[in-house]
Amino acid sequence: MSEPLDQEGRAALSDAGWAVGETQADKTFVFKNFVEAFGWMTSVAIVAEKLNHHPEWFNVYKTVKVTLTTHDTGGLSDLDLKLAKRMDALAG
Amino acid sequence: MSEPLDQEGRAALSDAGWAVGETQADKTFVFKNFVEAFGWMTSVAIVAEKLNHHPEWFNVYKTVKVTLTTHDTGGLSDLDLKLAKRMDALAG
Amino acid sequence: MSEPLDQEGRAALSDAGWAVGETQADKTFVFKNFVEAFGWMTSVAIVAEKLNHHPEWFNVYKTVKVTLTTHDTGGLSDLDLKLAKRMDALAG
Amino acid sequence: MSEPLDQEGRAALSDAGWAVGETQADKTFVFKNFVEAFGWMTSVAIVAEKLNHHPEWFNVYKTVKVTLTTHDTGGLSDLDLKLAKRMDALAG
Repeated sequence: MSEPLDQEGRAALSDAGWAVGETQADKTFVFKNFVEAFGWMTSVAIVAEKLNHHPEWFNVYKTVKVTLTTHDTGGLSDLDLKLAKRMDALAG
Repeated sequence: MSEPLDQEGRAALSDAGWAVGETQADKTFVFKNFVEAFGWMTSVAIVAEKLNHHPEWFNVYKTVKVTLTTHDTGGLSDLDLKLAKRMDALAG
Repeated sequence: MSEPLDQEGRAALSDAGWAVGETQADKTFVFKNFVEAFGWMTSVAIVAEKLNHHPEWFNVYKTVKVTLTTHDTGGLSDLDLKLAKRMDALAG
Repeated sequence: MSEPLDQEGRAALSDAGWAVGETQADKTFVFKNFVEAFGWMTSVAIVAEKLNHHPEWFNVYKTVKVTLTTHDTGGLSDLDLKLAKRMDALAG
């Protein structure tokens, strides 16, 4: 279902501030406070379930560290790019 | 605990786009989509519980209709103003 | 996409405690407190977006009044039954 | 504001399945699916903000790994015990 991410896709992630590794992309989001961080996480959770593609994420207070990867393809896929774009847009 | 809202407080609500009645204030928030509406609701829920002051709210898809009132004081109080300000800021 | 709900489906809703009208089904969920009510709403929100089918719902403190209807079919559909079943299971 | 956790408190955490270390307590919660995991996280988020005490937590799909610690006291405090109890009760 998911397609391995091509060079253009990897570049798009990188341009948007994601640390793009061999098999994953990482980004740390910092919000004003916990209230805003968790509101964002809720929006992202709704999107993720709809995509059937979930982040690995770590939260403490106003900080959320996200790792995206696709187990099916053993690395980054178009789903990671889609989810990343939604995360970035929702973080405003 | 909560103080009845004075004229200045009522004017502040009104200036911020709330329909201020005798005993309640109403506002309809419209978001881009359900994902953004519900993320906002989650942030507001966290704030409301912390204030020990909860909204009456109706949601369908991207629209949230809010009514604020304080049962203790039988009308609007400083808690309604506080919650309204947080709601407006989070919707910003 | 959605199919009008047949008699069997309407009976299933009714058996599960929904008030089944001509074009909608209603149910009031009461939780222990706001924290549990809103956690449930969040789970339901995630499910609803995935189904592309959203409830009309009103919340105040620990009470959530839900109305289900399908605008496409001008009444109840299989999507309402699906969402109702998930809501009931999550409240369980 | 927060008190260092005494032996009784540490034992209570341990009895409830938390791995109690020198300065932190850890527990992994596994739910049926992402929908239930994130609904629980939302309830916990509301509680945490009210306590002014937030977890460090990592989520992927239906699993949530939680670490509790109190920076003020440089270790476990009564707030960690309070939050742990609410987490356990909500996961019940």
